[in-house]
Amino acid sequence: MGVYGKDFEIETKGEDDILDISEEVADLIVESGMVEGIACVFVSGSTGAITTIEYEPGLLEDLPAALERLAPKRLTYQHHLRWQDGNGHSHVRAAILGPSMTVPFKNGRPLLGTWQQIVFIEMDVKPRSRKIYVQLVGE
Amino acid sequence: MGVYGKDFEIETKGEDDILDISEEVADLIVESGMVEGIACVFVSGSTGAITTIEYEPGLLEDLPAALERLAPKRLTYQHHLRWQDGNGHSHVRAAILGPSMTVPFKNGRPLLGTWQQIVFIEMDVKPRSRKIYVQLVGE
Amino acid sequence: MGVYGKDFEIETKGEDDILDISEEVADLIVESGMVEGIACVFVSGSTGAITTIEYEPGLLEDLPAALERLAPKRLTYQHHLRWQDGNGHSHVRAAILGPSMTVPFKNGRPLLGTWQQIVFIEMDVKPRSRKIYVQLVGE
Repeated sequence: MGVYGKDFEIETKGEDDILDISEEVADLIVESGMVEGIACVFVSGSTGAITTIEYEPGLLEDLPAALERLAPKRLTYQHHLRWQDGNGHSHVRAAILGPSMTVPFKNGRPLLGTWQQIVFIEMDVKPRSRKIYVQLVGE
Repeated sequence: MGVYGKDFEIETKGEDDILDISEEVADLIVESGMVEGIACVFVSGSTGAITTIEYEPGLLEDLPAALERLAPKRLTYQHHLRWQDGNGHSHVRAAILGPSMTVPFKNGRPLLGTWQQIVFIEMDVKPRSRKIYVQLVGE
Repeated sequence: MGVYGKDFEIETKGEDDILDISEEVADLIVESGMVEGIACVFVSGSTGAITTIEYEPGLLEDLPAALERLAPKRLTYQHHLRWQDGNGHSHVRAAILGPSMTVPFKNGRPLLGTWQQIVFIEMDVKPRSRKIYVQLVGE
């Protein structure tokens, strides 16, 4: 029984870029030597989110369209009035989706469905380097 | 200290069916013999979600109404244009709510409020068999 | 390797009050003596949520505005028609955001970004005492 954690870096193309990070998570489980437990996937930062989705081009357009309905860019944000950084909507979206996701693993593999991938969603208005941390707890 | 995990199957009646799975989670904790730790409740699949809600008939109508505002069925989804499966909105809703929930347990019981149940929300457009995986980490 | 958990109480001012609970979580990690693992932060109750956000006054207005778009107060809720407690929208918002958040810790500190705080969002319509439970699993 133990803990094994590591971060990895990804480069995003800016707002609404959705990156499949399932392989990085799966590789880390193999590297850890653990066979059973849970993996907490976390982004340090408040303008991005972690979730799962079927990673196919259609949904990579549909999900951002829903986020735009949830927190439209064109509205006035108090965050922007204070800081002039144009990303009030990004913060709001990220808080609603959340910065982390926890997935069980068994036989050394995450228990994802065939059409279910772990993704990072960039919500900030510019391209960014993101550090994703994966913490495994198991045996 | 150890890991104990198991899946169970539920049958859903199709879109907006919300099932209370609190008892299944509580039973698994008892079965494991663990008294303290965390339970990760996860659905393999990208058109359903796990969360908690007060399980009473009113909210079982109110929550789907909010999901309909978030990702209305009548809109055009790129996912549908590609795959013709009519569930683009299901995928979008599921990605926003998330496939997992983690709840602490103590004295062999999940620390839920009296009016707080763990639920699976079916978001796909047809009845489905769903496998819910519960992974316990604790002692 | 072990489990360490404790609750703490916070007083909220009612609907849309957002409280920074990062320090409470960080202190508990120090108190536990653990250096590496994951922290599950959970609220028992179905009208509040846990997430992370940049804790600054602008966003404390922007996030409630988005929650109001997601589940407007003025709509008719079946929950209200049954129970007359005026908080149908609170339950719906809480179910969508979720009652828990899991964050990794390392070197005895949660891996939050500089402008990323753990918050509790009060969604109920009146001031409440809230018990937040933090369960640590690690070593």
